[in-house]
Amino acid sequence: MRLFERSKPGIFLAADFLSLDNCLRLIETLEDLLAGIKIGHVLLSDPDHGYRSIELLRKYLDIPILVDGKIHDVEHIATLFCRRLLDLGADGVTVWGHCGPSVLSACASLDKNFAIVVLTELTEPSARPFHDALADFVATAIQSGAHAIQAPGTNLNTIKEARSLVGPKFPIFSCGIGTQGGDAIDAIEAGADYLIVGRTIVQSPTPMETAEELCNRIKLITRQ
Amino acid sequence: MRLFERSKPGIFLAADFLSLDNCLRLIETLEDLLAGIKIGHVLLSDPDHGYRSIELLRKYLDIPILVDGKIHDVEHIATLFCRRLLDLGADGVTVWGHCGPSVLSACASLDKNFAIVVLTELTEPSARPFHDALADFVATAIQSGAHAIQAPGTNLNTIKEARSLVGPKFPIFSCGIGTQGGDAIDAIEAGADYLIVGRTIVQSPTPMETAEELCNRIKLITRQ
Repeated sequence: MRLFERSKPGIFLAADFLSLDNCLRLIETLEDLLAGIKIGHVLLSDPDHGYRSIELLRKYLDIPILVDGKIHDVEHIATLFCRRLLDLGADGVTVWGHCGPSVLSACASLDKNFAIVVLTELTEPSARPFHDALADFVATAIQSGAHAIQAPGTNLNTIKEARSLVGPKFPIFSCGIGTQGGDAIDAIEAGADYLIVGRTIVQSPTPMETAEELCNRIKLITRQ
Repeated sequence: MRLFERSKPGIFLAADFLSLDNCLRLIETLEDLLAGIKIGHVLLSDPDHGYRSIELLRKYLDIPILVDGKIHDVEHIATLFCRRLLDLGADGVTVWGHCGPSVLSACASLDKNFAIVVLTELTEPSARPFHDALADFVATAIQSGAHAIQAPGTNLNTIKEARSLVGPKFPIFSCGIGTQGGDAIDAIEAGADYLIVGRTIVQSPTPMETAEELCNRIKLITRQ
C-alpha cells in the first residue's frame, strides 16, 4: 500500500498547525526525509481550502498522506467519510478501535489502496485510561483487515505490548513524539515503525536541521 | 445558550447525508418544527463548500447548529478545531467523554455561547461497550463545565442512568432514533431532551409529514 511505501522506520510529519500554503512549502523542503505526512481536522477545516487540501497535496507532492480523521462514529457515517477521503486522494485514515469490528471491517474493505490505522490510546494524561481494551482493539484491528495500529509514544509499555500482540511485521505508528513527551528512539526500540512528529519540527526555528537530526538518530539505531 | 433556545423536548435533524443545497432546501421547509440541526463530517468534507457550509447555514437559517465533530483528540487539536467551528458560526460541538477533563474544560471555556455536548456511547452494536465508564464521563462532563451529554436512543438504560446522574435540568441529547432502532417517545420518557433524527426524516418520501407526526407524538406525551 502506498501509505507504507517509503522508509521504515520513518517519520510522518503532523502538519496540523499550518495553513495549506505553509504546509506545502514546509513539506516540499522536507519531502525526501519523510515517510509521509499526517493532516488532520485543523488543516481540513480551514474554510479556504478545506478538504480540497488533500487533492492539492496529492497534486503537488509525491508523498503518502495519512488523514488523522480520528473517526469514532457509526458505520454508515464512517464509510461515507472514508470514501470521501479516498476519492480526494488520501492513502489512509485513523479510526478509533472503540468503533468495533463492523466499522473497522467496512472501512478496511473500501479499497485495497486505502489504509486503516487503528487508534488505541489518546496521548492525553488526564483522559480515563482504557489500557485493558488494548488487546481487544488490536485483535479487532487485525481480524477486521485493518492495516496498522497506533500506540502512544508517551507510553512505551503500550507500544511494547502492542508489538508483542501484532507480531513483527504489522505496522505500528507512534504519536506524541517530541513536544508531547515521547522519545523517537525509545518508541522505535519499543516496537514502533512510524513516528508521528509535529511541533518539534514544525515549530523549530530550523525545521530542516531538526528533521535531519531526527532521521540520523533513527538511522543510527536501525543500523545497529 | 443558543443551542438550547428552542422547544424542549425537541428534534435535532441530522443532515449528514445531504449536499449543502439539499440540506438548505430541506431545513428551510422543516425549520419551524425543529429544535436545531446537527451536521457532521460527511457534509463538512464536501469539497465544494466544506466548512463554509456552517457559515452559509448560519446566514440563511435562524436555527441552532450542532456540529457532530465527534472530537476524540488531544487538547491543542480539540481547541483549535472548536475555535474554527465557533468562528464559522456553530453553536456547539460533540466531544467524546473519553478525551478527559483537560480537553473538555478547555473546549467548554472557549466561549459562553459555544456548547460542548459530551458523547458517552456509540450506537454501534458490535462496538466494545464502555458502560462502566458512563458515570465517570458524566461526572467529568459536569465538572468540566460542559453543557450537555449525549446518550444512545438504542439503549434506554443508559439514558435513564445518565438522567439520574445529571439531575433534572442538564440537557441530554439522544441519538440513533428511528432507522438505527431507537424510539423517540421511549427515549424522552427515559429522560432525553433532544432527539437526533436523521434518515427517518431525510429519507422519508414525505419528510414534512414524518417530522410533523414525530413532533405531534412528542407534544402528546409532554402534555401528559
